Amino acid sequence: MKKVAEEIPAYSYGDVEVAASPVSLAELEQLKETAGFSPQDEAYLRMAGEVLADQTQEIVAHWRSGIIASIPHLARHSRTPEGEPIPEYLGRSNLRFQQWILDTCLRPYDQEWLNYQQEIALRHTSVKKNQADDVRSTAYVPFHDIVGFVAVMNDTIKPYLARKGHGVEDVEGMHGAWRKSLQMQIALWSRTYLDVAKKSNEW
Amino acid sequence: MKKVAEEIPAYSYGDVEVAASPVSLAELEQLKETAGFSPQDEAYLRMAGEVLADQTQEIVAHWRSGIIASIPHLARHSRTPEGEPIPEYLGRSNLRFQQWILDTCLRPYDQEWLNYQQEIALRHTSVKKNQADDVRSTAYVPFHDIVGFVAVMNDTIKPYLARKGHGVEDVEGMHGAWRKSLQMQIALWSRTYLDVAKKSNEW
Ligand code: HEM
Ligand code: HEM
Repeated sequence: MKKVAEEIPAYSYGDVEVAASPVSLAELEQLKETAGFSPQDEAYLRMAGEVLADQTQEIVAHWRSGIIASIPHLARHSRTPEGEPIPEYLGRSNLRFQQWILDTCLRPYDQEWLNYQQEIALRHTSVKKNQADDVRSTAYVPFHDIVGFVAVMNDTIKPYLARKGHGVEDVEGMHGAWRKSLQMQIALWSRTYLDVAKKSNEW
Repeated sequence: MKKVAEEIPAYSYGDVEVAASPVSLAELEQLKETAGFSPQDEAYLRMAGEVLADQTQEIVAHWRSGIIASIPHLARHSRTPEGEPIPEYLGRSNLRFQQWILDTCLRPYDQEWLNYQQEIALRHTSVKKNQADDVRSTAYVPFHDIVGFVAVMNDTIKPYLARKGHGVEDVEGMHGAWRKSLQMQIALWSRTYLDVAKKSNEW
């Protein structure tokens, strides 16, 4: 698997300690059908992976420094409760965020991928946030902000997809596949937040 | 307000009996910021409303008869537990679905809109599904299927937006605004599903 760096702190994709997702592969197949995610979309994601591979740093910087940092109710999740920046936290999780772009495009959507979907979702909830990087920050990222921010990620990714000279049809194809994948990922993460909701409201 | 029909059964937008949303207007402003939803997007939604106004029947037929009807795990939500069709249920809720397209494009996103967001979400959960049309059907639409299906709605709406001869920039603008609005609506609905989740898992 292509990696954004040799060492990615706390990136544990495929590790045995990653808990099993409660979502089955059969349910994932249904979710693909619901979202209209086809083998052609898979092919377009592979293409997107090639296109984005050397742009992940720029993209994550765009999202996190360029956008999130200037929206106080989002920026706080990478800061201390007192509002101070935590550069190591940002640095380490940025790298995992970069790798997630590659994983989204290049990984087979199998049981390991399902398991890591849950792991990433948990790392946005009070169950696991802050632990991987041993920091003091907000207890969780509210689910609705994740859902809302997807619109921004979807919009801003397009120019990066177009940057390598592909024709309109390929760019549209890559963009459509990307959007479907993100919608499926949000659907999967919602499972985690709904499970957490039984104990704690992290809307 | 433009209506898709003079009589829309069980359409109660703005009625006093619609419960107040737990989401405040201040929270909605933050959600707009999260999703990058700007005054320009509002203007593009108004344009989309003009473009889509005489196509709502075709669009809802496309989604429901053209797509959902042939996906068993989705089609069942408009059928009896035994799998029989319920044409009145489809007919009545299709009309409300059509009106939702206009509401999405043309309504101000104010307290009444927030309240009706909650009402529509509840009508997909066990709290209110089947009641408006007094039918026997599935208890709820799982939340992840709603999130996933947004990808299909977003994809398939585009040709309808392009059908009235607008230039590429306007079509892209309308499409971007539409996607942001749907992402915000899903974020709002997630609140309802997370509240319901305290008692019953409707992922
Ligand atoms: C769909 C939208 C989002 C995606 C795809 C996403 C993706 C990711 C990924 C891949 C990681 C690294 C997870 C890990 O391996 O530990 C991460 C971590 C993180 N994300 Fe997000 N994120 C999203 C939305 C947000 C939003 C809206 C915020 C807040 C503004 C946010 C804040 C964080 C924080 C603080 C971490 C570090 C979590 C920890 O303490 O382990 N994310 N995100
Ligand atoms: C974002 C995606 C969706 C949107 C925007 C949406 C929108 C709507 C709207 C506006 C209504 C009418 C609500 C009312 O006024 O009573 C409705 C009702 C309904 N929708 Fe959806 N829907 C979505 C996804 C789905 C999916 C995936 C299914 C299942 C395949 C579904 C099944 C139904 C059913 C069965 C009703 C009737 C609910 C009742 O008994 O009152 N919807 N939907």
